[in-house]
Amino acid sequence: MFFVSDNAAPVAPEVMAALARANEGFAMPYGNDAGMEHVRQRIRDLFDAPEAAVYLVATGTTANALSLALFCPPWSTVFCHRHAHIAEDECGAPEFFSAGAKLTLVDGAEGKMTPAGLAEAIASTARGGVHNVQRGMVSLTNITEAGTLYTPAEVAALTDVAKAEGLPCHMDGARFANALVASGASPAEMTWKAGIDVLSFGGTKNGLMGVEAVVIFDPARAWEFELRRKRAGHLFSKHRYLSAQMAAYLADDLWLRLAEAANRAGQRLAAGIAATPGGSLAAPPAANLMFATLPRAAHNRARNEGAAYYIMSRDAGMEGPDETPQLARFVTSWCTSDAEVDRFLSLIRGRGSRAGCAQRPSCA
Amino acid sequence: MFFVSDNAAPVAPEVMAALARANEGFAMPYGNDAGMEHVRQRIRDLFDAPEAAVYLVATGTTANALSLALFCPPWSTVFCHRHAHIAEDECGAPEFFSAGAKLTLVDGAEGKMTPAGLAEAIASTARGGVHNVQRGMVSLTNITEAGTLYTPAEVAALTDVAKAEGLPCHMDGARFANALVASGASPAEMTWKAGIDVLSFGGTKNGLMGVEAVVIFDPARAWEFELRRKRAGHLFSKHRYLSAQMAAYLADDLWLRLAEAANRAGQRLAAGIAATPGGSLAAPPAANLMFATLPRAAHNRARNEGAAYYIMSRDAGMEGPDETPQLARFVTSWCTSDAEVDRFLSLIRGRGSRAGCAQRPSCA
Amino acid sequence: MFFVSDNAAPVAPEVMAALARANEGFAMPYGNDAGMEHVRQRIRDLFDAPEAAVYLVATGTTANALSLALFCPPWSTVFCHRHAHIAEDECGAPEFFSAGAKLTLVDGAEGKMTPAGLAEAIASTARGGVHNVQRGMVSLTNITEAGTLYTPAEVAALTDVAKAEGLPCHMDGARFANALVASGASPAEMTWKAGIDVLSFGGTKNGLMGVEAVVIFDPARAWEFELRRKRAGHLFSKHRYLSAQMAAYLADDLWLRLAEAANRAGQRLAAGIAATPGGSLAAPPAANLMFATLPRAAHNRARNEGAAYYIMSRDAGMEGPDETPQLARFVTSWCTSDAEVDRFLSLIRGRGSRAGCAQRPSCA
Amino acid sequence: MFFVSDNAAPVAPEVMAALARANEGFAMPYGNDAGMEHVRQRIRDLFDAPEAAVYLVATGTTANALSLALFCPPWSTVFCHRHAHIAEDECGAPEFFSAGAKLTLVDGAEGKMTPAGLAEAIASTARGGVHNVQRGMVSLTNITEAGTLYTPAEVAALTDVAKAEGLPCHMDGARFANALVASGASPAEMTWKAGIDVLSFGGTKNGLMGVEAVVIFDPARAWEFELRRKRAGHLFSKHRYLSAQMAAYLADDLWLRLAEAANRAGQRLAAGIAATPGGSLAAPPAANLMFATLPRAAHNRARNEGAAYYIMSRDAGMEGPDETPQLARFVTSWCTSDAEVDRFLSLIRGRGSRAGCAQRPSCA
Repeated sequence: MFFVSDNAAPVAPEVMAALARANEGFAMPYGNDAGMEHVRQRIRDLFDAPEAAVYLVATGTTANALSLALFCPPWSTVFCHRHAHIAEDECGAPEFFSAGAKLTLVDGAEGKMTPAGLAEAIASTARGGVHNVQRGMVSLTNITEAGTLYTPAEVAALTDVAKAEGLPCHMDGARFANALVASGASPAEMTWKAGIDVLSFGGTKNGLMGVEAVVIFDPARAWEFELRRKRAGHLFSKHRYLSAQMAAYLADDLWLRLAEAANRAGQRLAAGIAATPGGSLAAPPAANLMFATLPRAAHNRARNEGAAYYIMSRDAGMEGPDETPQLARFVTSWCTSDAEVDRFLSLIRGRGSRAGCAQRPSCA
Repeated sequence: MFFVSDNAAPVAPEVMAALARANEGFAMPYGNDAGMEHVRQRIRDLFDAPEAAVYLVATGTTANALSLALFCPPWSTVFCHRHAHIAEDECGAPEFFSAGAKLTLVDGAEGKMTPAGLAEAIASTARGGVHNVQRGMVSLTNITEAGTLYTPAEVAALTDVAKAEGLPCHMDGARFANALVASGASPAEMTWKAGIDVLSFGGTKNGLMGVEAVVIFDPARAWEFELRRKRAGHLFSKHRYLSAQMAAYLADDLWLRLAEAANRAGQRLAAGIAATPGGSLAAPPAANLMFATLPRAAHNRARNEGAAYYIMSRDAGMEGPDETPQLARFVTSWCTSDAEVDRFLSLIRGRGSRAGCAQRPSCA
Repeated sequence: MFFVSDNAAPVAPEVMAALARANEGFAMPYGNDAGMEHVRQRIRDLFDAPEAAVYLVATGTTANALSLALFCPPWSTVFCHRHAHIAEDECGAPEFFSAGAKLTLVDGAEGKMTPAGLAEAIASTARGGVHNVQRGMVSLTNITEAGTLYTPAEVAALTDVAKAEGLPCHMDGARFANALVASGASPAEMTWKAGIDVLSFGGTKNGLMGVEAVVIFDPARAWEFELRRKRAGHLFSKHRYLSAQMAAYLADDLWLRLAEAANRAGQRLAAGIAATPGGSLAAPPAANLMFATLPRAAHNRARNEGAAYYIMSRDAGMEGPDETPQLARFVTSWCTSDAEVDRFLSLIRGRGSRAGCAQRPSCA
Repeated sequence: MFFVSDNAAPVAPEVMAALARANEGFAMPYGNDAGMEHVRQRIRDLFDAPEAAVYLVATGTTANALSLALFCPPWSTVFCHRHAHIAEDECGAPEFFSAGAKLTLVDGAEGKMTPAGLAEAIASTARGGVHNVQRGMVSLTNITEAGTLYTPAEVAALTDVAKAEGLPCHMDGARFANALVASGASPAEMTWKAGIDVLSFGGTKNGLMGVEAVVIFDPARAWEFELRRKRAGHLFSKHRYLSAQMAAYLADDLWLRLAEAANRAGQRLAAGIAATPGGSLAAPPAANLMFATLPRAAHNRARNEGAAYYIMSRDAGMEGPDETPQLARFVTSWCTSDAEVDRFLSLIRGRGSRAGCAQRPSCA
């Protein structure tokens, strides 16, 4: 009953096996390994983007910050949702990598910007004046930080606003596979066909040890990206182990199968919470992440049996009136089992805790 | 016969096994894994430094650049050897992480600064004036980029110069284990007892997949380091896999055994080259890295049989007079076998290439 | 009838005379002129702050950005009003000088933050977490960008909130003299006695050619300020001409007399607009700056006669229905004459334009 | 007898008069004053460069650092003389403005780089590798920091080396007028016709209060320059006073007449020192700046009578053997009088100190 984050889950066994296979003899360092050439081609094929520049880094913050810095000069601003990961959870990495660009925060229900809200934010930054920072870029997250989904049409509606002002668009796809599974869209439909110029293509939250791809649809910026990556300490000498992870991820649709498992568990959990007395979802979750309210007593029954997740309410403690609603964040992962979910649901409903948690072997 | 770099070698089998063992169930992310607590304590014990702050990052450039930025404000300069890795091979990472500090390059034979040379460089940067940048820090590399060693006494002689001016000292220990093995010094003797304030404690070149520790002997700067690491995208969510590598590295003296193997191969290679007609070493190698000159014909015989390493001479090609001396860099690693070395030596001496290369199983 | 900005006004004649007097013989450069020592002591006396560090720079953006950078590390955020000059009008200078700190924008009516609003903004940035940027500083502008005033008590109420969280406080005093005149407070009451740690003490908008003082009440940061100023190109070789301006400004209460003149003109203008049919003030102006609405026809009558000021409404043109309200910004200066104001008021009321504008001789 | 620096001299009376004339009524701020349009056109005419972008800033460090940052990305290096002002006297401003670019120091006698030395330095930075910083720009100073001159042909020889590698070229012309006077070259011959892409066109050391122009011969970068200038706090609201200074400077060849006076005084001083027993020049001075050696006793006689200049020798004190040679820097300015020079020469030769110093009225 571990719902803290998908980044606390283990590595998929197929990926571990690939790492073991990669561990033979010498390999040229710094991205010159043969595996990287395979990965590059595989991602180009997947995205139907034969010219795309493709790079691997080890963390999502890096993928995002390098992508933004690549397009945004220091005197520009990035338009993003108020609760975007780049705004709240990266300790200023976008500002660091860009040498001081700003973020302009856009409000929007359920973690999503609307075209009107984005247009207003852009309009609030004057065009062409030397006194204010310049309009830089639009960045959106899919699956959003609230657990909701932008469909390709919704992505396109936002990028249309951006393109009308000549602004490039970034997608933080830390949960890109989850978004594809939730939407049924193809990689191309969700990205460049919907106006995305650069994608942080996440792997770490979905079964890798620590690899994210950056996919830049206009290869003219490739060399600058390489220099920025090296200069930031993110070019790995033993790069073959990044390549191996990503190759395994993309082989036999493993990435989509892992995301399907996580989303399925998320949907099972969401349906169960919604059907629980006193339970309600902050927004209909599209994938494997959700915010939900339950009475303190329900939380306590689960917590007492070892369920782990974040309570977001200021009044987050276990002491207090039973009926106080407490908001919590739940994230399922590729290895969350039905049994885990069901046991949690039983607990919050006050029905026994005796049933053992039969975890999937790969997680155990 | 792969002597390109130790960072192209595979991961030690003990480390791969530790990664597999770490891959069970959930683990708290971002360095809050239990494994990290073990690693921290282990390193404190090894260095006889119970207060030291210990962090893990994935690349040597990161370990160096974060360490320098931690001690050097943007308006200061780092005194280092002209051919230091931080000066030549990190694409300006120290400047990036420090928001624009300088490097002052110090000449010195065989890759080593001398106390007199360092003192002169420091003196050339006026103290206290607002027009020039301020004296920031001293950084030295051990094993040096030329393959030579600073003994603890030599380290202390340099840090004495620094301390007399109130400057903190950094050691780039990308090959720290090799230096310890070569010198017979203890970790404490080579670092804080010799005046080092912060160490980049390398693992990647010595059998890890991608982990370096930063050891900060004054823990007052720990929190700032954490913020800088996060902000630079170098805080790993699935941090347990970094911890697992480092824990395996330090268990049962694996790290020293790997370095011993690499150094032994290096010494065998060096002795063989020196005993080869037309062969000479640029400096007596202390460990597993050396620059050596051989006639083109000797290089060609080896290259024709697949030996791989960097030729540094401008006239680096295979075409030309047989006797032209060509300078090359050779690096051995933990998995370089005697057979590999011997075969290479036979080739450069013009004696047969028929003997097969019996690599160590772990490298095969 | 020039109400565009006080920074478009000429230099006070007393200041021009002082520049001429300073133009004799040689003077030590870079702030080592005798005049600076006088200015330093004069400002310390004025502020009853015998230890304060005092520096001169040439622009308000510089005074602000250096002050913020002095207190805010790159991984922190500055809490300021949504429409603060540092947020909207400095092209990201705070981000540049601080190497990438953020601004957290606080809403508040009439250009003013409230203690509750500030407390909420601070609380929204978690304390101690490594994932978000750290709480850095509070910055407030007095006279505000909306033309309103923080009284010393109001300043103290905000700095109390900041101090409770351990945060230092900056005042952007581009119109500091205007604020003092409007409030009747002493320099000390408005600043360090009310919890301000560093002040941008403006002169340029109030009759100087281009000088602002930075007053740092804790002198421990003085040397770092000097290095930051030099590094940013803001240490003037012929510094004596900055000193001479500031000395003249502070002599015989010139600075307060200039601000009184500007404020008096502002109040006359405000009262007149409020008494004009269709005229209304966005907020009661405290000094020499105001936002006011008038019908287009009224604006047009004034504009046709050469009145100059910014129309802020999106529908800012002269063409359209006469009665459309248009929001405009008006700024008076030390040399705005009663006649200028009265002529403008006559025009917007539709009464003749024949009366000549008798400007003060010093402005003519 | 003030030879400390030309930046300690007063402002030329013609310039003071222009400032007084500019002090009438209102003027649009931030470079939108009519005077700036005049200056822009005047400089374009002078340089025979009808498309050049022209901007004014207040300090030489700013002119240099903005110029370098405009052409050099953070991951590049600027090739300049070891003793260039940008390397030694700007507290890291180039690194700050460029977000962390490097300087590669080139040795060369008498303050001048040679084409061969420059070519070697450029070659030492590998082209195209991701591990080292990239080749960025060449910067040279004219008059050099050693007081010597690059002729247009010598400038062209250096820029030819740069252009062969595709590198743009900057000239630090803090003493540009002095260089033109010394060389007889036209502004165009000394700059774009000799391969210079951007010029710091100094005024402050030659009679202005604090104005330098930046002349960018390729106007495509103009807008980025404006943003960088604003962001760095160097866009002046009361810009008309910068324009007025520069307009006066360029009117009636004032700038050349001032430089001629300074150079003439410099030559008189140099000839006199060379003809003094025990006196010798470090390099033949081309203009108004020189390094010269005199015995301590000679220095002492001058210092005792109030002569002011920098002694550069480590043994700089007045106590010690009379005959010890001490190296000193001497700078004359537009207002150095023959009488001042002659009195100094008399003193170092040990002949009387009774003759009064008849300074030029404008300096008195």
